[in-house]
Amino acid sequence: MLPGAGNRITDVPGVKVGHQTIIEGNLRTGFTAVLPHSGNIFLEKIPAAADVINGFGKSAGLMQIEELGTLETPILLTNTFGIGTGINALIRRELAENPEIDRSGGTVNPLVMECNDGYLSDINAIALTEADAFSALAAASSDFEQGNVGAGTGMSAFGFKGGIGTASRVFELDRGQFTLGTLVQANFGKPGDLTLPDGRKPHPNNTDQTEERGSVIIVVATDVPLESRQLKRVARRAAAGLGRLGAFYGNGSGDISLAFTTAYRVPHFTEGDFIAREILQEDRIDALFKAVAETTQEAVLNAMISAPAMRGYKGRSRPSLRDWLNGSD
Amino acid sequence: MLPGAGNRITDVPGVKVGHQTIIEGNLRTGFTAVLPHSGNIFLEKIPAAADVINGFGKSAGLMQIEELGTLETPILLTNTFGIGTGINALIRRELAENPEIDRSGGTVNPLVMECNDGYLSDINAIALTEADAFSALAAASSDFEQGNVGAGTGMSAFGFKGGIGTASRVFELDRGQFTLGTLVQANFGKPGDLTLPDGRKPHPNNTDQTEERGSVIIVVATDVPLESRQLKRVARRAAAGLGRLGAFYGNGSGDISLAFTTAYRVPHFTEGDFIAREILQEDRIDALFKAVAETTQEAVLNAMISAPAMRGYKGRSRPSLRDWLNGSD
Amino acid sequence: MLPGAGNRITDVPGVKVGHQTIIEGNLRTGFTAVLPHSGNIFLEKIPAAADVINGFGKSAGLMQIEELGTLETPILLTNTFGIGTGINALIRRELAENPEIDRSGGTVNPLVMECNDGYLSDINAIALTEADAFSALAAASSDFEQGNVGAGTGMSAFGFKGGIGTASRVFELDRGQFTLGTLVQANFGKPGDLTLPDGRKPHPNNTDQTEERGSVIIVVATDVPLESRQLKRVARRAAAGLGRLGAFYGNGSGDISLAFTTAYRVPHFTEGDFIAREILQEDRIDALFKAVAETTQEAVLNAMISAPAMRGYKGRSRPSLRDWLNGSD
Amino acid sequence: MLPGAGNRITDVPGVKVGHQTIIEGNLRTGFTAVLPHSGNIFLEKIPAAADVINGFGKSAGLMQIEELGTLETPILLTNTFGIGTGINALIRRELAENPEIDRSGGTVNPLVMECNDGYLSDINAIALTEADAFSALAAASSDFEQGNVGAGTGMSAFGFKGGIGTASRVFELDRGQFTLGTLVQANFGKPGDLTLPDGRKPHPNNTDQTEERGSVIIVVATDVPLESRQLKRVARRAAAGLGRLGAFYGNGSGDISLAFTTAYRVPHFTEGDFIAREILQEDRIDALFKAVAETTQEAVLNAMISAPAMRGYKGRSRPSLRDWLNGSD
Repeated sequence: MLPGAGNRITDVPGVKVGHQTIIEGNLRTGFTAVLPHSGNIFLEKIPAAADVINGFGKSAGLMQIEELGTLETPILLTNTFGIGTGINALIRRELAENPEIDRSGGTVNPLVMECNDGYLSDINAIALTEADAFSALAAASSDFEQGNVGAGTGMSAFGFKGGIGTASRVFELDRGQFTLGTLVQANFGKPGDLTLPDGRKPHPNNTDQTEERGSVIIVVATDVPLESRQLKRVARRAAAGLGRLGAFYGNGSGDISLAFTTAYRVPHFTEGDFIAREILQEDRIDALFKAVAETTQEAVLNAMISAPAMRGYKGRSRPSLRDWLNGSD
Repeated sequence: MLPGAGNRITDVPGVKVGHQTIIEGNLRTGFTAVLPHSGNIFLEKIPAAADVINGFGKSAGLMQIEELGTLETPILLTNTFGIGTGINALIRRELAENPEIDRSGGTVNPLVMECNDGYLSDINAIALTEADAFSALAAASSDFEQGNVGAGTGMSAFGFKGGIGTASRVFELDRGQFTLGTLVQANFGKPGDLTLPDGRKPHPNNTDQTEERGSVIIVVATDVPLESRQLKRVARRAAAGLGRLGAFYGNGSGDISLAFTTAYRVPHFTEGDFIAREILQEDRIDALFKAVAETTQEAVLNAMISAPAMRGYKGRSRPSLRDWLNGSD
Repeated sequence: MLPGAGNRITDVPGVKVGHQTIIEGNLRTGFTAVLPHSGNIFLEKIPAAADVINGFGKSAGLMQIEELGTLETPILLTNTFGIGTGINALIRRELAENPEIDRSGGTVNPLVMECNDGYLSDINAIALTEADAFSALAAASSDFEQGNVGAGTGMSAFGFKGGIGTASRVFELDRGQFTLGTLVQANFGKPGDLTLPDGRKPHPNNTDQTEERGSVIIVVATDVPLESRQLKRVARRAAAGLGRLGAFYGNGSGDISLAFTTAYRVPHFTEGDFIAREILQEDRIDALFKAVAETTQEAVLNAMISAPAMRGYKGRSRPSLRDWLNGSD
Repeated sequence: MLPGAGNRITDVPGVKVGHQTIIEGNLRTGFTAVLPHSGNIFLEKIPAAADVINGFGKSAGLMQIEELGTLETPILLTNTFGIGTGINALIRRELAENPEIDRSGGTVNPLVMECNDGYLSDINAIALTEADAFSALAAASSDFEQGNVGAGTGMSAFGFKGGIGTASRVFELDRGQFTLGTLVQANFGKPGDLTLPDGRKPHPNNTDQTEERGSVIIVVATDVPLESRQLKRVARRAAAGLGRLGAFYGNGSGDISLAFTTAYRVPHFTEGDFIAREILQEDRIDALFKAVAETTQEAVLNAMISAPAMRGYKGRSRPSLRDWLNGSD
């Protein structure tokens, strides 16, 4: 399958990504924001579904998405102890944008997902602020960096430096070309398990990591119209991409995949009792399944290749896969 | 809420129910067939979803419904050891009707659900035949009996005679009146736990039943357009109706609820990659939730009131709730 | 079944409950803390499992409990917009108690559950602080109040005042008497749907509530040894208790049930590869199922009866079920 | 990780596998039986759990395993239309062995799983008999064939001949060496997607298969003591092995993984209310996860390498991966 124009999640029209990167003192952390569209997401909700590949994680907001099949805030990615702050930031953002939340007596379901960056960053400082989250949201653009940025700043993967990565695929359906794009926060994998597409198994030198620690968050966007049950099926195929990399969803790894479609929106305030919708015929879905497996695999490799070696908290460091590939690790 | 014209599941236009009742020698058993529509169900599948309230049961076919959100055969209810025969009957029926199954290299997913009638019937005889299943299917009509008929023949409930029962509710949405109808195969509940709507707790005399044994299958039909995620939410509300009756989903009870909609069909052979659909706005769904809770509660009571006392296998017997209400138990 | 000595969740030995109640200006809110034991919960985790009856809610921490079957922090209940603050408070508490979290490179999974008190309280003020959470934790005792306290302060139920309620049951197993206790944060139910055990249906006068709004959180504790699969089964039976009250798990209601056992603990740091354990025989579990259904029903009624009428935000008010029962509503 | 003595599922002590292979006329089909132990499985149940990777399948018996965490019959693998017959055979076997089933008023939950062999075999003949199932059960041995045998007879995989395959791994824990073994019924994968460990992608010549069709059943056995929640986690890791092979769990593929442990048994008739048990510490589980991913990948390759090319129904044929590897395809 062919990649989209930028080989990134923002090849799906309307999707934007922003980072707030904190590299100072003992901190190597940040927020990454994914915006499904640039409108009011609370008023125009986005069909979404998640698959929990391994639930050793602290992500917040997935339960309501499972029940209702919709996402009503931007997505924030951060470190494990940034969840509470991310929630508060998203609540305040939605309250500011939506006096309707108050008037209708309702609330809002913030989606914040996380990986543990405690190896390279002083996570226990709980240093991220709501202002940091707002900065990531404000920075959202169709153009964004990969590697040691935003929530990817302090990530590790297979003993190398991890980070934020992305990839996309395009395919033809009735009415023309459609796109599926994936963004990962890659922080998983045991040294020695990483398998490249050509069968090579890069092992970092001098690593002190001996077991699986960490997590991976996968965000999948598409402009193909899907109902939430289909989106859950799509999200699940990220597990195939992780398997291809040599991962086995280790005990301590919170591996969560979330998929959404930009093809239609679910209005908060509705007139009429019924809503018209168009969705994909089920037997056409393999193109998306294959695209998720491929983009998950590639996005993780892109994250690692984009991430230079980093030294952080307590003098700890992670080498770069790019250096290993160049023979300089 | 008001009941439909017949206060039965067949108030939902197009739905039909048929029984094959076996009362002979040691047998008190049968098949009940529920047909979502009278066309070719394999070619025109029905949106459906199930909720497993308690999974101590042997029902077959639910896994694919969970994955794909569609039902592609009629529904058969029977006794626990009739599942294999029911599966074979539905396969043969679909093969006969659909040479397409062979040509396309596909198969078919039979839905057969069950309760244990081994107290009143010699279940170990495995006496039901595929011909019995065909008879139930052929008998399907919008008019059908409740009580000791079909799969309900050998049922017990709260120490009384159980059986097949039904109820329905109507409500207004845009474009007019809609219906939700429920059919139960009631075979659950401990003597003394049954609670009537007025708070009375009927206890059968001289029962030798001391623990929860049995199961309840709940089939919910509606003509409201729903996607499968919504149908799963609707199915789950049967648990509220069971709770109102005094049940607590006992350890040994297989309590399964299946909901389907007749509002649209999912074609097996498709042209074009997309399909248009109309579904209910989520915040209108409480009418259906309430209707499921009410009809589940009422359908069980209707089953029990419609079922005369029965004597069966090894001379065992179950009194009738109707007699208790008349003061003659 | 008979209630325990205090007819409350703290009849389960070791369990403690504390409240921090905020009634000032536009606020009617707070935190309620449930402590499974008084030791270090992170180092000595508690077997637990949850059942999501209806997932329209924002509770955090359930995903990891589903995966690992253990709870590693106290439980905090609060309002919907207090989740982020509750998470941060629990993280800080565990970091302070456990330098091990840092040394081992690990994190902690805070469990915070919620209902929306926005009718009686200015929830959008996001007024609760981490200090409030610590106050609730510090107040934990085997003796605690019901009604308009802690997270129950601003609750509504069936058009009446809701709140915190509790109930317990005792039963005999080998080695003597065991206990199951339930605590609810009751904030659910449509006016007119409430059904008392004798069949009466209290309707509040002059209510402006027309639809289901709110949620109910159910926490079940027992000293019976259960594995997490069994705890999930136990948690699910809260749905029967809600059904008996006339509820149908409305669309907008986040109905979550969490069960834990105090019978054994799962150590964070382990020696040896295996752990000995004793659990309940599966076919003895109906006593617990019945106890959950009964205590959930009764705990909600206890919450409502314990809660005096309240006037709050924007002059809104909720009458008391106690007054209705006394004929003074 | 090192393979066990025979690199097969029966390296787990007590596990036996038997085949009944039907190659005659238009038929290329059969039954494969997996016996967790040689005793009475109904009276001494086996802890088990399944993960549904993709639920487009007709396997029967999984619902009760999910609820109760135990397996109470041998496992039968067969073709899609052999499910009903397999169920009936297992019921009759258990009734014959267990007059207790009748006396206690209970029933039995047969586990039968399937793949579609309709390409090479006339599946619509529904030709398998209960006697065929009994033959597979009677043939069970620690020594068994791979490839075109039993339920693997008519299988296809990635456009090549599929079949039954197996692999095992050993690892050290307290008290010595433990084993995990996997058996697959491999009938999945699109031509061209297969990826060998060295990165090569074998594509069969002249295949008429253009889309994913089929399924894969994975049975994992271990002698490590695990509770059912842990077994479910173990089962899920089969998805990583499938991913490594190039699969993406295609829409039409029923991909089911079942894991059981032989380390302890759950008695049907019990004395006392509690049962003692020893289970693995959770943070030791990665050895099993890794072993499942590796053995799933290898068992599929072993199935394909063991299966000679076959010609069957309507003159259709599948080439052998072995021939491709030998350069003779």
